[in-house]
Amino acid sequence: MSEVETVGPARREGRGRDAGGKARRERRSSGGGIHQLPFKTLRNPFKPVEILSADQIEAIHEASLDLLETVGLEVLHGETLDIFERAGAKVDRSTLRIRPDRGLILEAVAKAPAEFSLRARNPERDLVIGGDHLVFDATGGPAFVSDLDRGRRAGNEADMKDYIRLVHMLNVLHQEGGTGVEPTDLPAETRHLDVYESILTLTDKSWHCWGIGAFRVRDAIEMACIAYPTTREELMERPAVITIINSNSPMKFDGPMGEGLCELARNGQATVVTPFTLCGAMSPVTLAGALAQQNAEALFMAALTQLVRPGAPVVYGGFTSNVDMRSGAPAFGTPEYTRAAFASGQLARRCKLPYRSSNVNASNTVDVQAAYESSMSLWGTILGGVNLLAHAAGWLEGGLTASYEKLILDCEMLQLMRETLMPIPTDKASLGLDAIAEVGPGGHFFGVGHTLERFETAFYRPMLSDWRNFETWTDAGAVDGTRRANAIWKELLRQYQEPAMDPAIREELAAYVARRKKEIESGKY
Amino acid sequence: MSEVETVGPARREGRGRDAGGKARRERRSSGGGIHQLPFKTLRNPFKPVEILSADQIEAIHEASLDLLETVGLEVLHGETLDIFERAGAKVDRSTLRIRPDRGLILEAVAKAPAEFSLRARNPERDLVIGGDHLVFDATGGPAFVSDLDRGRRAGNEADMKDYIRLVHMLNVLHQEGGTGVEPTDLPAETRHLDVYESILTLTDKSWHCWGIGAFRVRDAIEMACIAYPTTREELMERPAVITIINSNSPMKFDGPMGEGLCELARNGQATVVTPFTLCGAMSPVTLAGALAQQNAEALFMAALTQLVRPGAPVVYGGFTSNVDMRSGAPAFGTPEYTRAAFASGQLARRCKLPYRSSNVNASNTVDVQAAYESSMSLWGTILGGVNLLAHAAGWLEGGLTASYEKLILDCEMLQLMRETLMPIPTDKASLGLDAIAEVGPGGHFFGVGHTLERFETAFYRPMLSDWRNFETWTDAGAVDGTRRANAIWKELLRQYQEPAMDPAIREELAAYVARRKKEIESGKY
Repeated sequence: MSEVETVGPARREGRGRDAGGKARRERRSSGGGIHQLPFKTLRNPFKPVEILSADQIEAIHEASLDLLETVGLEVLHGETLDIFERAGAKVDRSTLRIRPDRGLILEAVAKAPAEFSLRARNPERDLVIGGDHLVFDATGGPAFVSDLDRGRRAGNEADMKDYIRLVHMLNVLHQEGGTGVEPTDLPAETRHLDVYESILTLTDKSWHCWGIGAFRVRDAIEMACIAYPTTREELMERPAVITIINSNSPMKFDGPMGEGLCELARNGQATVVTPFTLCGAMSPVTLAGALAQQNAEALFMAALTQLVRPGAPVVYGGFTSNVDMRSGAPAFGTPEYTRAAFASGQLARRCKLPYRSSNVNASNTVDVQAAYESSMSLWGTILGGVNLLAHAAGWLEGGLTASYEKLILDCEMLQLMRETLMPIPTDKASLGLDAIAEVGPGGHFFGVGHTLERFETAFYRPMLSDWRNFETWTDAGAVDGTRRANAIWKELLRQYQEPAMDPAIREELAAYVARRKKEIESGKY
Repeated sequence: MSEVETVGPARREGRGRDAGGKARRERRSSGGGIHQLPFKTLRNPFKPVEILSADQIEAIHEASLDLLETVGLEVLHGETLDIFERAGAKVDRSTLRIRPDRGLILEAVAKAPAEFSLRARNPERDLVIGGDHLVFDATGGPAFVSDLDRGRRAGNEADMKDYIRLVHMLNVLHQEGGTGVEPTDLPAETRHLDVYESILTLTDKSWHCWGIGAFRVRDAIEMACIAYPTTREELMERPAVITIINSNSPMKFDGPMGEGLCELARNGQATVVTPFTLCGAMSPVTLAGALAQQNAEALFMAALTQLVRPGAPVVYGGFTSNVDMRSGAPAFGTPEYTRAAFASGQLARRCKLPYRSSNVNASNTVDVQAAYESSMSLWGTILGGVNLLAHAAGWLEGGLTASYEKLILDCEMLQLMRETLMPIPTDKASLGLDAIAEVGPGGHFFGVGHTLERFETAFYRPMLSDWRNFETWTDAGAVDGTRRANAIWKELLRQYQEPAMDPAIREELAAYVARRKKEIESGKY
């Protein structure tokens, strides 16, 4: 038993002082006091966890190439069939099956850049994907949205916009994730235009477009050219458009995704090629089998980008998790997910590709499960050497729902991870032996110069955590973390200011959207 | 945007089936259905995270030895002063200051074993501390106890016993942690006897005694000899008694802890020597300074164990965290804590000592903050190569409170961590290429032989997580993780059965306690 640890002098001193609590209450009540870290691009100093030996990496890698040569992919996209046929792959037109040999795949993949830059509308928010760079990308895709006040509801335009505003406000997020809330109240064929217009006007961060169908990619490219502003030629040199391209696991690649991939690659824009390999459902029940299949599908898509345009930026996506074998429901943030995240990083680096993974969980509400499953995901991916962390904030319920409170919770966890990557300086002043001598045995460090010179910035200051003592916290209403998150996103929305944009550009964007809506409504995609 | 990921076929298939949900409900309602992993000792396969370079480790290590030589420790324990004086250290009797030179410290520390065994009453639960072994030790020390039904209250005998029963029931816990709930309703001078009697009868796992005062250690040793049963000579060869010994940071070592340490070491029992270095309070505001001071105090205490008895088992304890500089309150599970946990492991291994750290948090309630701060602690310590994870389950509110729901939450998180340490087999059957060929493009793996042969045991099955879909979960009352934890600990208490003990031993223990209470009440410690 450790009595000193729990009732020692620091605890007495610490718990007895509540000047900070008072200051924090004042800061909160003043309305402007959400404390965040500033926007900053990140590099990961840690050597990735190696769960696979070198031999095991090779075994999975070679198995994936065997899979491509023997099973191959069924491809429902004519252009992809043509491209692989021209490259010399075995293509069976009657079964739509492409069985590329390993030489073709590896030669193509070798042309992809190990890292690349991605422009944002605000040049200060340009990103690098690959190497030891680490990018936090907000959630993309959920059909539902939820918060404590209004509950769970279908995605809609108003929430889609508020969500983008929050992604803009949350400094730890580097990138909008491709529609945190799907606006299901807008027409399906043209809603991507409304989303792009919202993204490009409500935030100046990097963003994800939609990858389903060539026309949605073309619209993204056109609107990026208007908004940044830039030309298509410049965009080709310095990409700004990115999205996730999924295979239809197992071993299938569909038409709309094929169109999206080819259109992006042709224009020198970035694809994040991601199989969706849930062990026991769309992939073998074994992690090694799912990883082999993931690697096969990812390398197939990565090779395709390079056959379309050598040097086109492409990111290796890992999304291997498992299902609950008693219900068939997807499970996320499991030990299987974490181990697959470590292994996927090793496989991506084996092929010198940037690595994408995700912050996932399967909880139905913003509770302890949501937090610990997300933590499992964050540590698995970040210690696994992820470069692009998709769905990094806001994902709930296996990705069906974008949650406002989860967005805040995740950003707190991302801030914690970000600060964990910071080095420990060990210069003479940091070692502080003089301060220890000055304080002497049994003293305390609150008042010494060494502390006073540094205390304002010495430690991470949280956005969501409440460190007041139990009595003060209870007197203030015993508000738990999820309810505090609720107050924080509302305050951030109150503080939100739209980033400046030239009115002429704003008009041009609106005109583009209006014109394209008419065209699409008349069948011109 | 990734539509396949969120509304793809697996999701539809997964969410559409709820046979497992039904089975789970039946299991829960049958009353016997808390699913846990079995008891198992663990080894950590991962190379520890290196946040410090080799040069930085040396800089901190050398600074700590400088501190011992220049500042030294103030020691309020006569025997420790005598021991160091006999060993040739500079001892100033007027200021009670010991300033041992580096040679003396390092020579002594080098005699400590790099790993050692620790007996449990049940030999199947014997443990190894050190090397790549990983031991999860329940919370020790809190003065308060809390649960959702009864709120927060002073520690008491009834809760002390229930807490031990739960620690016994929770398979992922290897060790009782030294009184999860302090029985403040029992007399202070004799309550250790009641606690030891409860531990030794209510669980057969390894346990922590109290380290404050030689008499409490002697009573632990005597009662272990009765309960196991064993002799003092056998116990000397095969230790069973362990506890945490804290220095009174900064640079001070008090009498009762000195007595406890010397008594343990003299009898060949294990000490976990742990400074309590909160940056900005009892140690410099800089991590490097706190780590140098931690290392100085830990090596001083470790050396003392070896001066008392060369080869006595001793564990290097790291407890460096920071205070909230605005309130002075201790903060836990912070990025500073996590980075210090990485660094402390490097410092412990530098001296070839087993490494102890803790699963800590500062939340006032079992909410998302409790979960993410604990996750930061778990990942920092386990990836930092911890051998003995103290306070691994149940700690809340900076250690002031032992929480029943937090105990369950932590055990779920420990199970997740334990499964994350499992290897990924990559043999031919695990790679499963035949299964992928059998399923073919676009199929699913639910029904294939490769899946059916493995699905029962393929994946981690959680105790606390709820993976039912939103509608089913909502219909069942939308119970969040903390409230599910509440139901789980109650069910475990209902299922609890006391481990068998020879009635003669049981009587002898009771007689020992009765006799010692009388002695202590009459002033004979």
